[in-house]
Amino acid sequence: MTPDLAELAAELPDGALLTDPDRMAGYRWDRANDPAAGVPLAVVRATSAADVQAAVRFASRHGLAVVPRGAGSGLSGGASALSGCLVVSLERMRAIDVDPATRIAVAEPGALNAEVKAAAAEHGLWYPPDPSSYEICSIGGNVATNAGGLCCVKYGVTSDYVLGMTVVLADGTLVELGGPRLKDAAGLSLTKLFVGSEGTLGIITRVVLRLVPAQRPPCTLVATFASLDDATRTVLDITRTMRPAMLELMDRTSINAVEDVTKMGLDRTAEAMLVVQSDEPATHGVAEITEVTALCQANRSTEVFSTDDADTGEAFVLARRMVIPSLERQGSLLLEDVGVPVPELGALVRGIEAIAAEHVITVAVVAHAGDGNTHPLIVFDASDPDETARAQAAYGQIMDLAIGLGGTITGEHGVGRLKKEWLPAYLGPEVMDLNRRVKAALDPQGILNPGAVL
Amino acid sequence: MTPDLAELAAELPDGALLTDPDRMAGYRWDRANDPAAGVPLAVVRATSAADVQAAVRFASRHGLAVVPRGAGSGLSGGASALSGCLVVSLERMRAIDVDPATRIAVAEPGALNAEVKAAAAEHGLWYPPDPSSYEICSIGGNVATNAGGLCCVKYGVTSDYVLGMTVVLADGTLVELGGPRLKDAAGLSLTKLFVGSEGTLGIITRVVLRLVPAQRPPCTLVATFASLDDATRTVLDITRTMRPAMLELMDRTSINAVEDVTKMGLDRTAEAMLVVQSDEPATHGVAEITEVTALCQANRSTEVFSTDDADTGEAFVLARRMVIPSLERQGSLLLEDVGVPVPELGALVRGIEAIAAEHVITVAVVAHAGDGNTHPLIVFDASDPDETARAQAAYGQIMDLAIGLGGTITGEHGVGRLKKEWLPAYLGPEVMDLNRRVKAALDPQGILNPGAVL
Repeated sequence: MTPDLAELAAELPDGALLTDPDRMAGYRWDRANDPAAGVPLAVVRATSAADVQAAVRFASRHGLAVVPRGAGSGLSGGASALSGCLVVSLERMRAIDVDPATRIAVAEPGALNAEVKAAAAEHGLWYPPDPSSYEICSIGGNVATNAGGLCCVKYGVTSDYVLGMTVVLADGTLVELGGPRLKDAAGLSLTKLFVGSEGTLGIITRVVLRLVPAQRPPCTLVATFASLDDATRTVLDITRTMRPAMLELMDRTSINAVEDVTKMGLDRTAEAMLVVQSDEPATHGVAEITEVTALCQANRSTEVFSTDDADTGEAFVLARRMVIPSLERQGSLLLEDVGVPVPELGALVRGIEAIAAEHVITVAVVAHAGDGNTHPLIVFDASDPDETARAQAAYGQIMDLAIGLGGTITGEHGVGRLKKEWLPAYLGPEVMDLNRRVKAALDPQGILNPGAVL
Repeated sequence: MTPDLAELAAELPDGALLTDPDRMAGYRWDRANDPAAGVPLAVVRATSAADVQAAVRFASRHGLAVVPRGAGSGLSGGASALSGCLVVSLERMRAIDVDPATRIAVAEPGALNAEVKAAAAEHGLWYPPDPSSYEICSIGGNVATNAGGLCCVKYGVTSDYVLGMTVVLADGTLVELGGPRLKDAAGLSLTKLFVGSEGTLGIITRVVLRLVPAQRPPCTLVATFASLDDATRTVLDITRTMRPAMLELMDRTSINAVEDVTKMGLDRTAEAMLVVQSDEPATHGVAEITEVTALCQANRSTEVFSTDDADTGEAFVLARRMVIPSLERQGSLLLEDVGVPVPELGALVRGIEAIAAEHVITVAVVAHAGDGNTHPLIVFDASDPDETARAQAAYGQIMDLAIGLGGTITGEHGVGRLKKEWLPAYLGPEVMDLNRRVKAALDPQGILNPGAVL
């Protein structure tokens, strides 16, 4: 028999509990559009940690599944609703407090990444992690997936900036982990354990983030290559000797998709294009980009443009940012997120080409090349069952390929529900068991985001 | 009845098993000189992961406690032997393999921090974390305690550089966590969980470390202040606006102890001295140090010296490095490691002065000021029971003071056995419980470094 929601409603502010199917529809999917997403029993639009505690305690009492969600921009189905579950949305918890003296930001999980960056910028500070979706993704989701981005090649990932958090555990207990201290070696590293846990260990209601001084205006370079191998070799030459603030790669399919839409004059014949930025101070940024230019030319680049003007540079980067929107016009997308050790980048991209050819399907590759993290984008017609099946097959084979090259099935999007089938092959039975033991210790009832990751 | 060690010896190479009390004496203490250290049943001087597995399986079969140790340079008693335990020493596992293309180092736990730095330097690369003991501490111990150092204010702590590891679990299973990938969001963040676990969750037999390009030659500044408050205010002014590569503070007791030994001409009347480095490129390093000079002068510094010559700079830093050796000549030392949010630094140092006065005991303060991590050094005569008792009392009160200021009881040394009494007051009952649940899930028999941390 269904639990009495009035019991929960009584503990929440007016309007925080949604049960109307139409209104709940907006809380069933993230950007992975998981076809298996169910209809929740109810959606709790939390306004405080206390609301989250009330929801989790109710779920615990009645053995309900709880699916936490931020902005719903996830790409692995980590926020897909389950039939009869309680969805806990953090979208209304968006407070951000920046302390320039301690150089930290304390943010509620619903705050957008871009809002955290903006709040930091008001004090001349910077929150580096920059997922491509930074304008629409929530900081809570970033922490839950250990999100990455374009500047990670120099500045690291979300985990490197999380000093502490407040978390609601599976039994509704609220705990503070870490805090505004740059060093803390007291007790197990639970703060870091919760980063990337995708809502399976607890629900984050507050994060303490380390900020750094504002980034300097970058110098930017764009280079095209007739040969993909020349481009990937250039990536290695760069990472071996310098530390760019951005090192992105687009393959021919990506270049042409963007050119179709933007008509910005990209070389449609190029097999690959690199977008590189340096944020070293003034003349040193120019010098670093000059070095990159030499490396591109040594690897037979067909064209190289560079600029020390930040706005012109941003226009170059726009081509990179336009890849996904441009491809979305060509059909449905399956977004991959496989990463390999940088030296394997070329083998990965060539292998992906072979998989695309085998399944007669379009796969565009855009990559955070400097850290070996690629996003193969599988374009398909969702109304064509056969093509959809081929897309699904390619999606899986690309992960198998990455594992074979010593890579990971997900560099920055998380496992969610779409990739969990491949996790055992990646981690192996012993590490899977270790994951399950930690999960069972923290969520013995198994009510927190069941079916995600594990 | 004591287990038959022949059973274990048969699985180990000749000479790997020590049972002679005289030879085992060197494996009973770390640098904390824990008076409660016991006499082990045996010491395993492991040469491989297989040796560690054999030792742990033997301990598991017979319910023996296992105490892992690296170089024995720990300051919190994390490696104190227990009576009848099996000590597993990693000192013989020292291989280091640097891959410049992937920009990682794969190191065995017994390799010294300085050896890892040297191996990286051969390829123009750098492993940043730099505990003051870097010449004598092992990388495995660094990872087990999430060690920090002087450059952390700009470059972060050990955890920020650990991409993966191989670990022997409590049942002897060998698992690989993470690997040579800059981004990996697949499964729980177990690699980070094991960093700082002080041997209570598993024994690390191999670490995969992220390297960065070689650090530029630094510009260095030394400034003295008649008032400690002026010095701590200067620290805040610096961290608010720039990102030095080193920002250290010495109080008057430290300054005088060093001057007694080195006769380098330090101002004995100064209440505080700051040592600051910038590793920004060329003219920008000079410019940053010029800015720091202005901030020192604005806060009434009595003297400021700066240099862009790396060797002269290292001579300045020597004063900082000499603090502990100089104080060791004055008596026994209890080394504290409390950290606070940077704005509380002044209150912490003043509070420590009051505690020293109350207990009529010498407490010198040296601090990684830029990240709020201080090392109050309690000097006492170990042959005087009353003074020893006062030292112990001060040791505890300093941790209570730090907790009261929103700080931690250990920034970079770990809890070990000496500080575990204070961990519950710092973490609180819920987080202590969370620590215990994770510990129980991974080490149900409780054989891994029992009595440390928890």
